[in-house]
Amino acid sequence: MDYIVSDRVKTLKPSAIREIFKYAADPTVVSLSAGNPAPEAFPVKEIAEISNKIMTENPIAALQYSVTEGYAPLRKTVSEFMKDEYNVGREFDDLIITSGAQQVMDLLTKSMVNEGDTVICEAPSFIGSLNSFRSYNARLCGIPLEADGMNLECLEKALQNEKNVRFIYIITNFQNPSGVTTSLEKRKAIYELAKKYNVLILEDNPYGELRISGENIAPIKSFDEDGIVAYAGSFSKILSPGMRLGYVIAPKPIVSKMVVCKQGEDVHTNVWAQMVAHQFMTEYDFKAHLKNLREIYRKKANFCMDLLDKYIVPNKITYQRIDGGLFIWCKLPEGADMLDFCKQAVLRKVCVVPGNAFLTDEKEQCSSFRINFSTPTDEQLEKGIKILGELAKEIL
Amino acid sequence: MDYIVSDRVKTLKPSAIREIFKYAADPTVVSLSAGNPAPEAFPVKEIAEISNKIMTENPIAALQYSVTEGYAPLRKTVSEFMKDEYNVGREFDDLIITSGAQQVMDLLTKSMVNEGDTVICEAPSFIGSLNSFRSYNARLCGIPLEADGMNLECLEKALQNEKNVRFIYIITNFQNPSGVTTSLEKRKAIYELAKKYNVLILEDNPYGELRISGENIAPIKSFDEDGIVAYAGSFSKILSPGMRLGYVIAPKPIVSKMVVCKQGEDVHTNVWAQMVAHQFMTEYDFKAHLKNLREIYRKKANFCMDLLDKYIVPNKITYQRIDGGLFIWCKLPEGADMLDFCKQAVLRKVCVVPGNAFLTDEKEQCSSFRINFSTPTDEQLEKGIKILGELAKEIL
Repeated sequence: MDYIVSDRVKTLKPSAIREIFKYAADPTVVSLSAGNPAPEAFPVKEIAEISNKIMTENPIAALQYSVTEGYAPLRKTVSEFMKDEYNVGREFDDLIITSGAQQVMDLLTKSMVNEGDTVICEAPSFIGSLNSFRSYNARLCGIPLEADGMNLECLEKALQNEKNVRFIYIITNFQNPSGVTTSLEKRKAIYELAKKYNVLILEDNPYGELRISGENIAPIKSFDEDGIVAYAGSFSKILSPGMRLGYVIAPKPIVSKMVVCKQGEDVHTNVWAQMVAHQFMTEYDFKAHLKNLREIYRKKANFCMDLLDKYIVPNKITYQRIDGGLFIWCKLPEGADMLDFCKQAVLRKVCVVPGNAFLTDEKEQCSSFRINFSTPTDEQLEKGIKILGELAKEIL
Repeated sequence: MDYIVSDRVKTLKPSAIREIFKYAADPTVVSLSAGNPAPEAFPVKEIAEISNKIMTENPIAALQYSVTEGYAPLRKTVSEFMKDEYNVGREFDDLIITSGAQQVMDLLTKSMVNEGDTVICEAPSFIGSLNSFRSYNARLCGIPLEADGMNLECLEKALQNEKNVRFIYIITNFQNPSGVTTSLEKRKAIYELAKKYNVLILEDNPYGELRISGENIAPIKSFDEDGIVAYAGSFSKILSPGMRLGYVIAPKPIVSKMVVCKQGEDVHTNVWAQMVAHQFMTEYDFKAHLKNLREIYRKKANFCMDLLDKYIVPNKITYQRIDGGLFIWCKLPEGADMLDFCKQAVLRKVCVVPGNAFLTDEKEQCSSFRINFSTPTDEQLEKGIKILGELAKEIL
């Protein structure tokens, strides 16, 4: 049989990162290509205790069907936390639990974007989200990312010229892959532009709690008095990614459509995970846990940046120091063949992600690659970066 | 702001069943409207043991990111089980784990159906699946269901006349809502028709293990030498629905597209649940558990049918005896006002699901309603059916 696939998936490819994972599966290869949180950051003991308690005291609630919107106590707890800590959420907003923040990208696109409509995003941006938008045949329009966020002139031009722009997708803190944090001024400016052009913002903040230096910057959603921002939150980096737990805070009319879509997609999110997250946030010292996480990542990130400074000749590979997150964006000299560099690195058993994977058009020229420091051990990280440094010296 | 929603969700409504759940939440109301598995059917002790073991011995594997295709040992175990027990799965097929079988409906539609394309389904059929197809703007074409499955003449006519038919959706065993099991002859005929007209079949079998009488009938997928059947399986009725665990067995080119879509939807399914299911299938007596389940449901179903025979005057409400599953389809006399009957029942504190909720066009005439016997206690079931009997006597 000739399988006729839908137009929306015709050009959809497995994420380039996943292809690279094939090399990374070789145990002799040092993988700097993943995006896994550091395993030592998981509160294993607490999760085991809570899980055990649920299965002893309240197993049926964890095992039976539940409601699409999510486990009510968790919705309330997250809602209060986000209001108290970040002034996120208004009377006109609602919060639902999703199967990872990835599902927020999916459900918002499904609810608000017709095939051929435009989604504006940062260039580069997170490939998982871009593929989610692409899977509904959205047209992607990338806005060049500067050290403090999107180029505002390009953004306004896009808002003026692009047809049927449905939302602006932005990862405000320690962006994946660039590590860039959008400044407060730009956050405000982007909000005003969205308002002026009557376009939604999808603010994705999976790494916000992983700040290792500097002060927190208010989320765009915290300015949202007009009901134009959908905020995607995640438990993947602060509790466990394997649980697949995220949430969205957005105006009720949007959330109600997302709920109907979620019903047809997976009915509801795994209940055990929702109960574990709720008890972890309410019966343990959640803020102390977050502080501890920041310590872990501060150490890892600084170690990685020190290695880059130690092993890499500055005019060969440059990078912008990060204030948090999991990734560092490394730039080769203008004109260098980045793809060849990444291939040579694989031959020397180091895996990084070629930067063009994160562009709206993968065929565009890109001289950067992404490295991750949370997954490898310190030894692996040192070995990997040393090899990258040697390679750069030799071929660049 | 005026929220412009996408065309695909414009007419999408929350499932009518969920609306009815609002009444059902009233503890004084007897709800025969749910579709929850019987809580006593959950292997709570075993799940607690396994969960505890995972969190003690292998927590990081359960908490870290995993692969989109699913936990490899579970894929292998389910694959072998389905091959050994039902002759389902060929060399050209692949199996991936999904977030409930609901996600199979979603991913297959997303992968194979363009907006405006046609999906053929039984009429009536499971509302969750219909809404999933609708959410991609598929056109639904309902084929009248007879006591032994779809009307074959209507099916062939639809295959001849409908444009861009992408698949035939069929729940082969103890169909929701009708309770109908498609006969072996009709399964074979439907397979041949699909082959003749070059159309896929989506065979959904969430209740297959819950047979309470008669012999197992071979799944359509077991005849599939041509690679034209996608088979959706579920752990919801045999382990736990709260875990959100399902799977699909389908030809590799289809599955590979579904994987790309799943990546953008939820990255992968909750790992803890996948590990629990795997250990339950391999380290416990899984077949004895299934046998025990059938005992539980046999008792419940027979109790319910006995009550119907006891309390309901035969010419007022009729039903077809079931061989398994969770639902009984009750028919009022021709010309009776079914919606009014359901409303009157709610006023007397019994909730059932009006049959039109399961039609491709909810506005169509329907004289049936669905009752469920797995969720209520024996006392609730007796009370509820007695009230339905009294009501029928009074107003029909």
